[in-house]
Amino acid sequence: MNTFGNIFRLTTFGESHGPAIGGIIDGMPAGVDIDFDLLHADLEKRRPGKDTICSARNEADNVEILSGVFENKSLGTPIGFIIRNNDMRHQDYDAIKNAYRPSHADFTYQEKYGIRDYRGGGRASARETACRVVGGAFAKMILKSLNIVIKAEIENYDEWRKSVSEAQQDGDTFGGIVKCNISGCPIGLGEPVFNKLHAALGAAMLSINAVKAFEYGEGFRAASMRGSEHNDYFIEENEKLKLATNHSGGILGGISNGKDIYFRVAFKPIATLPKEFSGRHDSSPVARAVPIVEAMASMVIADYYLLNRNSKI
Amino acid sequence: MNTFGNIFRLTTFGESHGPAIGGIIDGMPAGVDIDFDLLHADLEKRRPGKDTICSARNEADNVEILSGVFENKSLGTPIGFIIRNNDMRHQDYDAIKNAYRPSHADFTYQEKYGIRDYRGGGRASARETACRVVGGAFAKMILKSLNIVIKAEIENYDEWRKSVSEAQQDGDTFGGIVKCNISGCPIGLGEPVFNKLHAALGAAMLSINAVKAFEYGEGFRAASMRGSEHNDYFIEENEKLKLATNHSGGILGGISNGKDIYFRVAFKPIATLPKEFSGRHDSSPVARAVPIVEAMASMVIADYYLLNRNSKI
Amino acid sequence: MNTFGNIFRLTTFGESHGPAIGGIIDGMPAGVDIDFDLLHADLEKRRPGKDTICSARNEADNVEILSGVFENKSLGTPIGFIIRNNDMRHQDYDAIKNAYRPSHADFTYQEKYGIRDYRGGGRASARETACRVVGGAFAKMILKSLNIVIKAEIENYDEWRKSVSEAQQDGDTFGGIVKCNISGCPIGLGEPVFNKLHAALGAAMLSINAVKAFEYGEGFRAASMRGSEHNDYFIEENEKLKLATNHSGGILGGISNGKDIYFRVAFKPIATLPKEFSGRHDSSPVARAVPIVEAMASMVIADYYLLNRNSKI
Amino acid sequence: MNTFGNIFRLTTFGESHGPAIGGIIDGMPAGVDIDFDLLHADLEKRRPGKDTICSARNEADNVEILSGVFENKSLGTPIGFIIRNNDMRHQDYDAIKNAYRPSHADFTYQEKYGIRDYRGGGRASARETACRVVGGAFAKMILKSLNIVIKAEIENYDEWRKSVSEAQQDGDTFGGIVKCNISGCPIGLGEPVFNKLHAALGAAMLSINAVKAFEYGEGFRAASMRGSEHNDYFIEENEKLKLATNHSGGILGGISNGKDIYFRVAFKPIATLPKEFSGRHDSSPVARAVPIVEAMASMVIADYYLLNRNSKI
Repeated sequence: MNTFGNIFRLTTFGESHGPAIGGIIDGMPAGVDIDFDLLHADLEKRRPGKDTICSARNEADNVEILSGVFENKSLGTPIGFIIRNNDMRHQDYDAIKNAYRPSHADFTYQEKYGIRDYRGGGRASARETACRVVGGAFAKMILKSLNIVIKAEIENYDEWRKSVSEAQQDGDTFGGIVKCNISGCPIGLGEPVFNKLHAALGAAMLSINAVKAFEYGEGFRAASMRGSEHNDYFIEENEKLKLATNHSGGILGGISNGKDIYFRVAFKPIATLPKEFSGRHDSSPVARAVPIVEAMASMVIADYYLLNRNSKI
Repeated sequence: MNTFGNIFRLTTFGESHGPAIGGIIDGMPAGVDIDFDLLHADLEKRRPGKDTICSARNEADNVEILSGVFENKSLGTPIGFIIRNNDMRHQDYDAIKNAYRPSHADFTYQEKYGIRDYRGGGRASARETACRVVGGAFAKMILKSLNIVIKAEIENYDEWRKSVSEAQQDGDTFGGIVKCNISGCPIGLGEPVFNKLHAALGAAMLSINAVKAFEYGEGFRAASMRGSEHNDYFIEENEKLKLATNHSGGILGGISNGKDIYFRVAFKPIATLPKEFSGRHDSSPVARAVPIVEAMASMVIADYYLLNRNSKI
Repeated sequence: MNTFGNIFRLTTFGESHGPAIGGIIDGMPAGVDIDFDLLHADLEKRRPGKDTICSARNEADNVEILSGVFENKSLGTPIGFIIRNNDMRHQDYDAIKNAYRPSHADFTYQEKYGIRDYRGGGRASARETACRVVGGAFAKMILKSLNIVIKAEIENYDEWRKSVSEAQQDGDTFGGIVKCNISGCPIGLGEPVFNKLHAALGAAMLSINAVKAFEYGEGFRAASMRGSEHNDYFIEENEKLKLATNHSGGILGGISNGKDIYFRVAFKPIATLPKEFSGRHDSSPVARAVPIVEAMASMVIADYYLLNRNSKI
Repeated sequence: MNTFGNIFRLTTFGESHGPAIGGIIDGMPAGVDIDFDLLHADLEKRRPGKDTICSARNEADNVEILSGVFENKSLGTPIGFIIRNNDMRHQDYDAIKNAYRPSHADFTYQEKYGIRDYRGGGRASARETACRVVGGAFAKMILKSLNIVIKAEIENYDEWRKSVSEAQQDGDTFGGIVKCNISGCPIGLGEPVFNKLHAALGAAMLSINAVKAFEYGEGFRAASMRGSEHNDYFIEENEKLKLATNHSGGILGGISNGKDIYFRVAFKPIATLPKEFSGRHDSSPVARAVPIVEAMASMVIADYYLLNRNSKI
């Protein structure tokens, strides 16, 4: 149950305070150009300690690629990787050894498994997302060759920045929204019925820590719209069918229709409040979430691209 | 890719205008009491043609259970079922043989597969949801023995009813929101990281036709909340830990925490407008969506209940 | 757990004495020519009651295709099918209601599930194999377009026939061996490590009722061979590499190498002895096993052909 | 496709001449006692260079456990591990850079992927089996608590030893057979139809490098037996049903029946002949195969034990 994807599959492991986290990317086709700069740039974007919103914890995030790459091409074999946990200050976490932090997973892990690595967030730590970024970077290498571009950003950045600063001054934290756009996606991605493309994107986003909501196209607004407002009508242009509008968000019947796919993801505020717990903590989850949203979306699109190769004989 | 679930699995088939739709429920444990009344009552709730909002198409939805049940108990073997398509008026659909209806899946199916059953919505038809209701009914039989109760309803029913009626008078359609509550869910359901319980619920809801958005707990509201507002704090009551509030929506770190799970699902308006197409069509998808939301939620909870049996040795 | 395959997937249901057996073929690519004659011919080969070795039970095996096919082409959507159980003489089985037949699955089903359909073999009945033949027939339609030919036959037919007749005269039963050859298989099918092509073929064969052994290439003989005897050496012919011999059985490192794939499957004698139980019973399982071996091999090759489409970008 | 198992799942990575091999064990239930001595003892058994039959290559096989274990108990989270490739003498392999070794996977890998790590066997190397031994060791920790004992050995050890020595003197190699016995297996393991217990064991064995054949119970002998010879009859002992014989090999209808499970696995001779290629090479694959057969069998039994927990409500 620690595997994501169908053909392009990422399996991850690792507690925040064990020796390392890491994963295996399976289903990477052979012959893809490996772009290590892209990989390192994405990890750098996710890394905490870069500004005043993210904590100062020094996670070097030095990823080591252990297999599946040869002479800068993918081999078609699984890509194993690890990231060492270098900066473990165990004393920071002594206070929580016998306590459950509010709105954390300590309580549910203990109940589910009867045991937990109490030294930190363990598997529920945000550190786990570094592995998603690695998986996403390899997916992006596939998408690059297909001219598919995925771009996420914080919604209303200037206002959000102000709300976070104010919360910080009060020893508090704040939530936020990340929006994402996918352009250049070929028509036909998505499996009807249970594996609609937006259901896969939604599941991917909802699997990110602190995410509480997902919408695509008009989203919740669609619930109070009429059909005549919401429908996208075909127009003919140069003897080809084209959609005049894109209320649908680039997906019809669960299948991409060639228009941009766009969606929004809501994050709750970080549960660990500086005024309650000392230590290194972020003030809002969305500061680091942008590359994670891109990574997850990239893995979904790469996976569904490969799946779709078998739609026709 | 027409399978839903991990241990409790529903696989479905069927075009709206072929001889039948149906499915196979695999992973139903042996020894569950089979409640045919529950099954028929759920199908009846989903059936169109009951009021002025749903079309008059007479879908008898007579399900035939073909295997897996013996002397009113589940055998532990797969449960096969079919529902015949009785009321096929092919002439209704002649107009669309060579045309793509706006905001329908006609176009994307044709592009993805190079072929489609043009006589109707085919696999993308709302008729497919009858199979989900059958799967959900069997899941509910498991949940009944665990005292888990899942209850969905249309949000702001009275106002929504008025908006639909007004749209209907204009030959138009309207969207809507279904909200759902799960009570009695044991602590510990949900697989951390990629298969968080709410990610599974979200994927299930987003796989329903016309759904554009999903949120649980505070949902999008959480994005503009501070941590001190959103956190649920533990209080001690009779020497047991208890959560004073439930902003989280019953799930922490992707794992159920024993509080009620609640979520909201947004549906876009039906794309087929009465003023554009004659025939039998619903005015809002949510009229029939309530039992489908319950069915999908029931399958998720039953599946994750069975998965969780292997969390500990 | 009633699903076979990865991309091309067959899921089946049905007890021998319920209303019907059937299944769903998922992953059939769109645009394949549907050959109903092939389907019916294969079912006819499997049908019992054709000669003195097979029992006289009249299984009409009238398969009804319910979806996924339109204007004689596959739609890319799942293919649902059922086969009614017409000829149920319940009285034949009264004797076994409270008894476990020797070397049958009655005992293990009862222990595993705590319940069983005691009216017959239930899910363990040979009747289940009709669904495999349907799945195999659709797989063959894919293989036909690729010029892959799969041919199974009873080994040493004349001697085997004599042994069966002698056993029959004594109220006894007899085993047998089916051998199979696959020609025209493209190079590259098979996933190294856990999903080697021969491991998939072996699992497929061992899943057939009464199978006790599987070998490919030199099989057990290879265990007492030297490397210099067993190795297949490359020779150059018209500037292309060619293998001079085929001890390996057409598979190297789990991947097809372009030579014929050949394997042998051993069946134990039927456990129900005419001298012990009255009723309609076969004298040897291999009489009906030939089309089943072909069906299972066809599904494996079709599945691995589709899987292999994603080996390279 | 580099994943083995359903609930207890091992995913592996690694080329023989890359920086490391390794894997992730997912589905290990929480609370299992971790026995590092068992793990190291099993790895030691598999390690080459211990006697004259295995090559002198110094594979330290120092496994590093990176997650999923805390205070000597399993956490219920995935167990990541790596084994560094320390002893890489690249010059040994220069001769094969532009050549395909006979009866090796060089040719089929190159054809399948269009690229290969020509420095050695890559993913097809026997080195990969070290990861299987790690997975098997963790499975054994589950089985230990259930009193299930799995024991493999080389068949006819003294004669086989002589044949290998003679082959060695001629610069040649030799095959061999490993037999395996499973005692203490509870009744009820195995999923009928496609996932019979022996089909899973067969697939597991056939996935091991150099395996050409698998049989269980009477195996190929059953093909020339009569039903009256092969049937295992129930006898009553102390008012409990018992099987007098065990021709079936401990499995009926694909489900374990409580008797010992036994099977045989045939290995072809190693393809690299000392008289053709200098370097470090084994003389027979079975010398190192015993712990690998045990490891694969252990993973199958642990997996099917966990699967079977959901057979009944």
